[in-house]
Formats: sequence, C-alpha cells, structure tokens
Amino acid sequence: MTILVVGGAGFIGSTLVKRLCLQKKRVIVVDKLSLGSEDYLKGADIKFYKEDINNLEKILHILSSESINEVWHLAANSDIPSGVLDMQVDLKDTFMTTISVLTLMKKINCKKLYFASSSAIYGFKKERLHEDIGPLLPISNYGAMKLSSEAVISAAAESFLEKICVYRFPNVVGVPATHGVILDFIRKLKNTPDSLDVLGNGTQQKTYIHVSELIDAMLFINSNTGKGLNVFNIGPRDNGVNVSQIAKEVVDVVSPNAQIYYGESDRGWIGDVPTFLYSVDKLLSLGWEPKMSSLQAIKKSVKEIFKQENS
Amino acid sequence: MTILVVGGAGFIGSTLVKRLCLQKKRVIVVDKLSLGSEDYLKGADIKFYKEDINNLEKILHILSSESINEVWHLAANSDIPSGVLDMQVDLKDTFMTTISVLTLMKKINCKKLYFASSSAIYGFKKERLHEDIGPLLPISNYGAMKLSSEAVISAAAESFLEKICVYRFPNVVGVPATHGVILDFIRKLKNTPDSLDVLGNGTQQKTYIHVSELIDAMLFINSNTGKGLNVFNIGPRDNGVNVSQIAKEVVDVVSPNAQIYYGESDRGWIGDVPTFLYSVDKLLSLGWEPKMSSLQAIKKSVKEIFKQENS
Repeated sequence: MTILVVGGAGFIGSTLVKRLCLQKKRVIVVDKLSLGSEDYLKGADIKFYKEDINNLEKILHILSSESINEVWHLAANSDIPSGVLDMQVDLKDTFMTTISVLTLMKKINCKKLYFASSSAIYGFKKERLHEDIGPLLPISNYGAMKLSSEAVISAAAESFLEKICVYRFPNVVGVPATHGVILDFIRKLKNTPDSLDVLGNGTQQKTYIHVSELIDAMLFINSNTGKGLNVFNIGPRDNGVNVSQIAKEVVDVVSPNAQIYYGESDRGWIGDVPTFLYSVDKLLSLGWEPKMSSLQAIKKSVKEIFKQENS
Repeated sequence: MTILVVGGAGFIGSTLVKRLCLQKKRVIVVDKLSLGSEDYLKGADIKFYKEDINNLEKILHILSSESINEVWHLAANSDIPSGVLDMQVDLKDTFMTTISVLTLMKKINCKKLYFASSSAIYGFKKERLHEDIGPLLPISNYGAMKLSSEAVISAAAESFLEKICVYRFPNVVGVPATHGVILDFIRKLKNTPDSLDVLGNGTQQKTYIHVSELIDAMLFINSNTGKGLNVFNIGPRDNGVNVSQIAKEVVDVVSPNAQIYYGESDRGWIGDVPTFLYSVDKLLSLGWEPKMSSLQAIKKSVKEIFKQENS
C-alpha cells in the first residue's frame, strides 16, 4: 500500500503525511516547496522528492519503479490575492497540477484520488452552502481553478477513476502556518506592536477548521464512502468567526495594548468572499462529529502560530 | 465599433460573423482553422487571421493597431469523444483558448465578452436543467473545460470584465456542418448506402437548435441584458429528439432503403450525455420566442447538410 501525496510538504499536506505515517502507510511526497518545507516532514519515514508535479516527465521517471495505490492531491497556490492579479498563478499551481495528477494517474493506472477542494468554488452566496447548490460562480481565480479541477476530476470519474473524494475545505488554521490571516496579523504586530491594520472593515465572517480536525474528517470521509465521486464540505457546525474577532484574539496574545485599525470595504481584497454560511449536514449524516468550533480553532491556532513565530 | 470573433471560421462562428456583418459591424476573425474554413466566410467584409488564439504574442502583435470593443469567444474543440480519450485536446482548445481570450482582454482593456458554453457543463442529470441547478458534474473533458471556462470568466467578471453573456448551447445543427451526428450518418450512408450503423441503441434523446436560430437568440440575449454576468440556456421549448428519429430522417433523405442497425449501449461513447431535459424558461422570460422545434431543426439540417455533401 503506497500513497503518493502531491503538495505533501505544505501546511495541510505535511500534517496529512505525518498522520498517514502514524497509520503505518508507505508515503511518497512530491512537492515543489513554494511555501512548504522539508522541515515540516522531519522525522516522518517517507520518500521525498522536491519536484513540480507539472514536470510530468521527471515525475514519471521518479516513480517508474513504484506501484502507487492512491493519490492525495493537495498542491495549489495558497496566495489568493496574488492569483487574482495574475491568472497564471492559479492556472499553473491550482489547475495544471490537477491536470498533471490526472495524466499521471491514467499513465500509471492508479484509480483512487483524494482531492483538496475549497469553499471558494461557491463564490459569494447568501444562502447556506450545501454540496448540491448552484449556480457556481467563483469570484477569485483560486476558486475558479478549484472548480475547474473538480470539473475535470468529474470527467475522469466517468472515464477511468474508480474512487474519488473531493473535500471542500473552509478556511484552515493551525501550524505549520505558511500563510493566512492569523500569521499576517502576528507578523504585522511584530513589526508595529502598537497598531494592527486590518484589510477590510472586519465584518468578513468565515468558517474555520483546525488542520488536525480537517485531517480527521478527510480520513473519516475516505473510510466511510464507497466507489465513485464523493463530494463533501468539511467544517464545524457554527456560522464562523468575523475578522475583528480574530484580530482581537491575536492582539490579546501578541500585543495586548495594540490599537486595531479597520479599512472601509467589506472585503479584504478583490476575490475575497466576505461571508459564507457552510452546510456540513452531509458530513454529519455520515456520522462525523466536529470537536472544535471556529472560535476554538482560531484560539488554538493563534497560540500555536505565535509560538511558531517565536521559535 | 470593432468586434473580435475568436473561432469565427467554424460552423457557428462563421454564421455569427456573417450576421454581424449584416448589422454593419466591423469584424476581425481569429481562427486556427482546425475544423473551420476561410471558405465559410466568403463574401464577408472582415479581417481574417489564421492563428491559434493561444499564440498570444502573435495575437497581440496582429491586434496592436486595433481598438477592440467586444470579444465573442467561440473557439473550442468540437470532437467530444477525442477529448475524452486525450485530456490535452479540450485542455488546449476548449479551456486554454478561454485563458488566452481573458489574458488578451485584460491587456487590451476590453471589457465585453460573449462566450459559447454548453449544456455539457451539467453532466448527466435526470431533472430539467435550468441555469441555477447544481451540482455540476460534467462527464466529458469537453463539458469539464466549458465549465472551467465559465468559472474563470466568473472570476474575471469580479475583477475586470464589465458585461458578459454566457450562452449554454444545446446540440446545434445546420450548415456549414463540420461535425455532428447528421453529418456522420450522411457520410456513413454514402460509404454503405444499404446500411447505417448507429453508435448506441438510438434512445439518446437531446435538444437541437438550428444555427440560424441560435445566432438570433445570442444576439437577442446580448441586446436585452445589462452589465454583469448573464448566463442563459439556449434551446427550443420541446424535450428533444432521439437518435433513432434522426437516423430515420437521414435515411429517408439520403438512402430510403437502407437498414438501420443499433448498438446496445444507451450512450454513443464514454462522456456522451444520453438524455437531457433543457429549461429555457429564463430565456423565455426575457421575451424570446423559439421558432423551430428540435425535430424541425433536424429536418431542415438533414436537407442542408445532404446538399452540402453533394456540392
């Protein structure tokens, strides 16, 4: 039983890899280390290749003596604003990585794919987001390229894949943090301990999950679904936390006397979904029970990331 | 007022271009002529460039002295089965053409986009397909890459486009025919006048529109919608025609004594959507009145394509 994890040295990928190792799985990691790091995998008994999955010839050569049973695809751009400014970023890192994964799987005759998708595919909607909602009108290239990835995976499900799980992540927090609002705030406060400038007016309200619980849920879905295309939102039960709450949590831990300054827009940047209400009814019906609320996940992560930044 | 039509020498594109010329618009056509032909544009007063839109540097050079007000994007692979076998076909011709169009438009600061999408984005669903339905799980790479195109257009609508129409075509028939079931049947009967082998069991039932009426509808939607992203199914009111009816129509016209032989599957090929019920309620609410039924469109096209193949 050999598992290939593409993007396995990133924030979520490395956490997944370590968990798979605990389950005594044989793991191969391919990661181009754009934001990830080999350090995140320290102590894990794996094979690691620093390579872009889009260099398919090299990848096929690397894997030529391996027999891969399943692929976990977590390679993607994680800097959403940069992808809005330059379409090429998400085209290459979020979409072409999926094309490469599928092309690879077809060539090596591997038929099980577990894919990290995103709530960003839904775009900005006021109603609660369940898996079957439409229309799907993403507002960032990141969301567009995740939806595109799902589309081409759906076609591959029809033609050659046997089992697929598509996990639609909400915002994910925890360590090793490579990006995201908490890390941003902590770094800003280290530069200017007296003040914190927040992008947007602080009302943006989103659902957060801690990376440890996200991995639990992914493995749970994997174990409790059968063949075919299984699409699941993953998240806590609550309606999320707004940015001003996160700012206060970070200030409390990092620099209690700092003044928080807000912008005027209800969006942090173009392509930012200001609010979303996530439905995890489908996941709950499968028997899953979330352990942390969005706020608990934020609180835990603020402490973890503060520690990371000070070590 | 200068209009760029990408894919303007194909079956639908050339029909659109001639219509735009009748409206005294100044038209520039870019087409790589994979299935299209400059002959289809004979007599039309346009600028024609034989070039792949994906060669963006050349395209920018060609258009450097032009001021383009709007872009119609009709460039796509039209051989769906070939795209199922090789993902690269629809990746390049159906999706990357959209990326190129958007990149071009951003560079030349053009903000009006009219895009030919497809009922294939819906995948195989039993319920009636209206524009807001979900989930969207295409079963061919063609459908996947049209959905991907819509996704990236949706993100561009958020960041820089001003007016967009997305037209979701059903099956389109008429001349100049470059592909499709009627042309296939006519060519088969010319080879073997005594028998017609049909892919699938003949029960596949789909909605058909004649290309002339499709163009009417596209221009109607364009004129009757405002800024923002306007997504419309286009089609007749009826529930479609099945493949065995089409086979009979073709045999009647081309070779009345031919015997028709059917396959066993309810699908013509992997990725073929066997049946779909199309909702055009949104288009009807806009004031549109379809003139031809699916069967009328088929009958008219059989005669036109037979004439084309004999001339």
